[in-house]
Amino acid sequence: MTNKYDLVIIGAGPAGLTAGIYAAGNGLKTVILSRDIGGTANSILRIENWPGFKGTGAELMKKFYEHVKSYNVNLVTEDVEKIEKKDKKFLVYTKKEKFETGAVIIAIGRERKRLNIPGEDKLRGKGVSYCVTCDAFFFKNKITAVIGGSDCAATSALALADMVKKVYILYRGEKLRCEAINSKRLEEKKNVEIMYNAVPVEIKGKEKVEGLIIKEGKQEKEIKLDAVFIEIGSTPITELTKNLGLKLNEEDFIIVDDRMETSVEGIFAAGDITNSKLKQVLVASSQGAIAAKSVSEFLRK
Amino acid sequence: MTNKYDLVIIGAGPAGLTAGIYAAGNGLKTVILSRDIGGTANSILRIENWPGFKGTGAELMKKFYEHVKSYNVNLVTEDVEKIEKKDKKFLVYTKKEKFETGAVIIAIGRERKRLNIPGEDKLRGKGVSYCVTCDAFFFKNKITAVIGGSDCAATSALALADMVKKVYILYRGEKLRCEAINSKRLEEKKNVEIMYNAVPVEIKGKEKVEGLIIKEGKQEKEIKLDAVFIEIGSTPITELTKNLGLKLNEEDFIIVDDRMETSVEGIFAAGDITNSKLKQVLVASSQGAIAAKSVSEFLRK
Repeated sequence: MTNKYDLVIIGAGPAGLTAGIYAAGNGLKTVILSRDIGGTANSILRIENWPGFKGTGAELMKKFYEHVKSYNVNLVTEDVEKIEKKDKKFLVYTKKEKFETGAVIIAIGRERKRLNIPGEDKLRGKGVSYCVTCDAFFFKNKITAVIGGSDCAATSALALADMVKKVYILYRGEKLRCEAINSKRLEEKKNVEIMYNAVPVEIKGKEKVEGLIIKEGKQEKEIKLDAVFIEIGSTPITELTKNLGLKLNEEDFIIVDDRMETSVEGIFAAGDITNSKLKQVLVASSQGAIAAKSVSEFLRK
Repeated sequence: MTNKYDLVIIGAGPAGLTAGIYAAGNGLKTVILSRDIGGTANSILRIENWPGFKGTGAELMKKFYEHVKSYNVNLVTEDVEKIEKKDKKFLVYTKKEKFETGAVIIAIGRERKRLNIPGEDKLRGKGVSYCVTCDAFFFKNKITAVIGGSDCAATSALALADMVKKVYILYRGEKLRCEAINSKRLEEKKNVEIMYNAVPVEIKGKEKVEGLIIKEGKQEKEIKLDAVFIEIGSTPITELTKNLGLKLNEEDFIIVDDRMETSVEGIFAAGDITNSKLKQVLVASSQGAIAAKSVSEFLRK
């Protein structure tokens, strides 16, 4: 059976959910397909730059979700497996169902980068984590490390510091790239130690993480610890869209115009998967709004 | 006395207040100068497309304001009278004070368009209004008209309909340009009457509004009513920036690049005063965030 829609939105993070709100406002028959609700925004420990809100990413995504559900928008939590162009329409497939639509908004975001060092795979879920908000709780009064120097790394370290005994921040550069306010907060934490020019080379442990070998210049040394949180950025999720031939930038983010349309007519993109300069919940959400408005104009043509 | 800042933000609507939040997060010494808090967003009767929020524009702007005030951002409610370039700095003048700054974000939005017909000026505040949210209350059980066919006109008419006896919508076009959901809601209101191809030519009344003369084709007729709400759009407020020689588009909106910088280095713009395609609180807010982040990078150069 084929389900017919004006618009299929793929992804239910800030961009996808906002696109849903705007699509409803514009009277489009809309379905959102996504493996989860909230996307990577759920793992943000503390959001202070969504105007009028302070709290966790998961709390904010719950508000977005409830807003969407107050309208006549269908939300199906299934993974999308394929998108096909068929004449002037598109076919979107999940494992169970097929959706025919006049336009698609791709809003599936990014995924975490891996270190690719020995021990990382073997000890994943046994002390190796990519999500402080999900796993910090398990390391109360333990020794931990955050790998990375971005603002995400800094806010993760701040959150950890309130819970664990000790937080090392290991960064290969010479100065954290985080917001000044967070840099200052880190300085004030007594149980945070920042190591610059430090490159992790191996995660040690049999059943669980026991130590981390790092290289400082030419010297290697081992730190004893219980958990390693890897916060070294992310890459766009573009596997799904490969067959469509969308134009990507040099880092594989989808290139969109100011109406959020991709290089393929009828396919729009919004949020962190696009070539936007500032990867923020607010910017992704605004792009979702613009994409839905553009779809509404596109379908009226 | 000159006050020295990293950043002066002019305007305290969605764009200006969000820029303030982001500037604080980036550790910039910031002042917001504005005649009021909230700007024209205060006059939005019902916001349903700020994700996670449903309420009036004024309520949302209060949340933004409280968020800004939780940081170390100075907020001065004074009109800006002049901006001057001085070497690599800018001087911003209010009536009472002078501010020296490394960068400026202009976020002063738009102002309402006037009909320019007889009676409009004379009866302003006596039944002629540009703000339903401010004045609807005075016309309980009275007969009113909304002039315009945009989504703003539609939402104003919807709000009025719940309060007054009768609402005429007068539009010179043949189909309202509002969102489908609002069009449907208007149809369901028994006290709303939409008149198409109708051009208002004179507002009648001695001490207060008594009638409206409209032209339908070649025929003129008078409608007896008590209030005329004018909702025919708005123009950017560019008087203040004339001397800076910023590049404007054909409708006088300020042209910005994807970092929100104008044609003059160090001057950024955000919100409804820019050439953005979608004039929405969410889009203005996102632009404010991007502008502040860009200023932070600009000042580090």
